[in-house]
Amino acid sequence: MARKTAPAPSEDSTEPSAEPKAARTRQRILDAAAHVLSRKGYAGTRLSEVAEIAELQAPAIYYYFPSRDDLVEEVMWAGIADMNVHVGEVLDRLPPDMRPLDRILVAVEAHMRHELEISDYTTASIRNAGQVPEKIRTRQLAEEAKYGAMWRALFEAAAEAGELRPELDPVIARMLVLGALNWAAEWWTPARGSLDTVVATAQAIVRNGLSAG
Amino acid sequence: MARKTAPAPSEDSTEPSAEPKAARTRQRILDAAAHVLSRKGYAGTRLSEVAEIAELQAPAIYYYFPSRDDLVEEVMWAGIADMNVHVGEVLDRLPPDMRPLDRILVAVEAHMRHELEISDYTTASIRNAGQVPEKIRTRQLAEEAKYGAMWRALFEAAAEAGELRPELDPVIARMLVLGALNWAAEWWTPARGSLDTVVATAQAIVRNGLSAG
Repeated sequence: MARKTAPAPSEDSTEPSAEPKAARTRQRILDAAAHVLSRKGYAGTRLSEVAEIAELQAPAIYYYFPSRDDLVEEVMWAGIADMNVHVGEVLDRLPPDMRPLDRILVAVEAHMRHELEISDYTTASIRNAGQVPEKIRTRQLAEEAKYGAMWRALFEAAAEAGELRPELDPVIARMLVLGALNWAAEWWTPARGSLDTVVATAQAIVRNGLSAG
Repeated sequence: MARKTAPAPSEDSTEPSAEPKAARTRQRILDAAAHVLSRKGYAGTRLSEVAEIAELQAPAIYYYFPSRDDLVEEVMWAGIADMNVHVGEVLDRLPPDMRPLDRILVAVEAHMRHELEISDYTTASIRNAGQVPEKIRTRQLAEEAKYGAMWRALFEAAAEAGELRPELDPVIARMLVLGALNWAAEWWTPARGSLDTVVATAQAIVRNGLSAG
């Protein structure tokens, strides 16, 4: 599965440098590793299988990643880091006077569309939480904390503006909403309904589920 | 973590038979296997570690389970089978004239309380979805289909009664709700808020998120 952030091939470039090709190969290795990691788990992930899917000789992986654990570490980090950048950029572009609850709904859409686009990274992260050694998760956990802080700020702004139902615990409400979104990577296929319908249904539940209005 | 269905020790029995002890030992092995499987994944689960946590010699496991895969298979199946029985029994006890949306809220509570009680089974199942060989998941998938059908019936009844917001896709709404519930096993600890608060917040979001009223 191609990731949005993979550099586009510069087909019309008159001076192709080695850099884009190396970056694309590195991305292909990461995509393949996310695929294998989500299906085989940490202990079952073999570089030979990653190499086969990335259409490389296994030793070539070591040109990009010093060890299997470095590759796994990068996959566990990359999905959430990428999500952070993506949702952050979308929120930054919003008009500053937009209501907090509407900002939450924009974040719901940005999260879901991106998650389902990079779903191998999302499921790799979901399924390997707690399975990989702690040292592999250091950067991932730091990135998750940053992402969590972004959502916490969204919910706190909505609570302060009196837009959240008073009977809701804002922390728990946030975790339940993120759970509904994250879990979609485990069940969504186009056969379940279009991505637009998924987003619209999630937004309707979140809006009405949270709104005091 | 003890499971609700584990037979209670019959301390006041005057004629303790071998059966309860064997059943308890078997349950202890399953609990230990759920613990290891949720943390190490399928490929990383070793019987020696399961035995250590269950306070047994490793070969004793083979008295209860013919192979490692048989034990894993039972864990993957037991969590959802147990959930099925539990939620089914709770729903069966409801007055037949209860409104469909209220039945959904009862199911939300029954699911969450049970899930967080047997959270090692839930996380083992979440994290090993797609990692264990297909043949190991046969019974689990059948049980999941039964459980899914129970929730589908709940949502269909609510839709037919006109209790669901018309803008919701009932299939997607159901999957989003179940995702929010399932994910709680990944984040909930008493430090995040009491279980009662988790249940009340989930019910408020589901009720208002779904309700046309």
